[in-house]
Amino acid sequence: LVLAASAMASADPLPSWDDSAAKQSIIAFVDAVTTLGEDYVVPEERIAVFDNDGTLWCEQPIYFQFIFAIDRVKALAPEHPDWKDRQPFAALLADDMKGLLASGEKGLGEIMAATHAGSTTEAFAATVSDWLSTARHPRFNRPYTDLAYQPMLELLAYLRANDFKTFIVSGGGVEFMRGFAEHTYGIPPEQVVGSSGATKFQLGPDGKPEIVKEAKVEFVDDGPGKPVGINRFIGRRPIFAFGNSDGDQQMLEWTAAGDGRRFVGLVHHTDGVREYAYDRTSPIGKLDKALDEANTRDWTVVDMKVDWRKIFPFD
Amino acid sequence: LVLAASAMASADPLPSWDDSAAKQSIIAFVDAVTTLGEDYVVPEERIAVFDNDGTLWCEQPIYFQFIFAIDRVKALAPEHPDWKDRQPFAALLADDMKGLLASGEKGLGEIMAATHAGSTTEAFAATVSDWLSTARHPRFNRPYTDLAYQPMLELLAYLRANDFKTFIVSGGGVEFMRGFAEHTYGIPPEQVVGSSGATKFQLGPDGKPEIVKEAKVEFVDDGPGKPVGINRFIGRRPIFAFGNSDGDQQMLEWTAAGDGRRFVGLVHHTDGVREYAYDRTSPIGKLDKALDEANTRDWTVVDMKVDWRKIFPFD
Ligand SMILES: [Ca+2]
Ligand SMILES: [Ca+2]
Repeated sequence: LVLAASAMASADPLPSWDDSAAKQSIIAFVDAVTTLGEDYVVPEERIAVFDNDGTLWCEQPIYFQFIFAIDRVKALAPEHPDWKDRQPFAALLADDMKGLLASGEKGLGEIMAATHAGSTTEAFAATVSDWLSTARHPRFNRPYTDLAYQPMLELLAYLRANDFKTFIVSGGGVEFMRGFAEHTYGIPPEQVVGSSGATKFQLGPDGKPEIVKEAKVEFVDDGPGKPVGINRFIGRRPIFAFGNSDGDQQMLEWTAAGDGRRFVGLVHHTDGVREYAYDRTSPIGKLDKALDEANTRDWTVVDMKVDWRKIFPFD
Repeated sequence: LVLAASAMASADPLPSWDDSAAKQSIIAFVDAVTTLGEDYVVPEERIAVFDNDGTLWCEQPIYFQFIFAIDRVKALAPEHPDWKDRQPFAALLADDMKGLLASGEKGLGEIMAATHAGSTTEAFAATVSDWLSTARHPRFNRPYTDLAYQPMLELLAYLRANDFKTFIVSGGGVEFMRGFAEHTYGIPPEQVVGSSGATKFQLGPDGKPEIVKEAKVEFVDDGPGKPVGINRFIGRRPIFAFGNSDGDQQMLEWTAAGDGRRFVGLVHHTDGVREYAYDRTSPIGKLDKALDEANTRDWTVVDMKVDWRKIFPFD
């Protein structure tokens, strides 16, 4: 037993990371805050936050939750014959992506409301679970949950082994993410912070209490909403934060501005062969201002092509 | 070491509880859900929720957070000379409780806004911490955090020793409760769900990011708001819930309605000598409909006078 424990301690906790500066900066940080000394942080304060889309799993060709919504519109269409002649549903049902995008924020809101509201929280969770087990990514032809990044799975486990509490802080819908975060990342529902719609408690037709999802947006956990969400849901400032886009900038700034040693990281999507290459002009996961800020500060920028030996568990 | 562990395991985990039905029902429940068999629950699903005021600590003669607000108005009064002539502040400053209560919800809202908004979250936390270390309860002449209930401290520790995750779900202000929950109850900030005001992320005068508390109410975690708050912050249904008033009824119903074995408890304040005796007609902690419901169902009602050998740690 002692031998086994010692063998585990000396094994590389991040085997999918190249032995480059990014990996070194992570390990140096974890060593510093877990070793008694000037940078030591008590376990209760070891809060680590991760963006989800583009940081923990893939977000191309479009956010997976949006693909879920598209699939839901198609599945629900027989019950809504009027959708054939009504935008943005008509464009969506005709696979007219250009027409769909032309409907803008308002159209997107209608699709989200039509597919994410009106059911009980339990029915919605079952729908998400069904979709995750059957839907396949258009390029990789695998379940979406297979597209979690192997180096980040190792990083989450490494942090937890060092008594960090790992949280998701994402612009994605909280109830969508809770449908896979525990199984895929080992992050339980109560450690998932995300955007949310309003909900209502009521007695159902059978007299049993239920919580129903409403069409009203309650909280947008993006940009300046991320530190606000961290304060609301976690109630203390993280010492470790990882993101991949300008929507994470304020969360990274909030983390960096705390007293004592901090780790701030950005995933830079540079590998068009194994994954996707995009940054400053991408409509999904735009990384521009936050990349400039990272370059002028001591933030760690992960170059996926160089720093990650493996991208997906199946690589 | 083995002897010490075995001695601890056989020691009574709830020594301040009389050996009556209430205690038996708690132990029977914990044994059932932690023993492999038909009632077994995996550790991740062992979610226990507790109301705070009147359930984990005393709430008389008035909610402690309201006493905090009164003390804050008095401390801030020199900076607000107009308060002398403006209700509800004038009544409060003249110790005119009747006049203060006459200002109703609107007056209470003004006091909460004047004392809970406008500062950064960090400055507010420091104010709460200062107050908790200096203020004294009018009857017991002790710090308010001394007025946590000893039997409930034992219950929280007992549940955690059995791999439950313990949460507060309270109508109290979340940032006020986070000021003492970790130290007093062993419940970390990220496991405190409460009412909240809106907050805003901004760059402060020194260019450093800060989160500022606004005067707008964001969420009221009371009544039907409690199951909504549980869904929002915890994301799964508790298997164990404890409250003390009608404001807990929906949380208890939501817990009770889940599949499998559940524990639902109510603290009934029956001891006017050691604490306070109140229920159906009390303006603070009114327990009426929930008591009726408890009596028609298999909920556990704790009779404080009979079931608790000790009420406070100092008894
Ligand atoms: Ca992202
Ligand atoms: Ca209460």
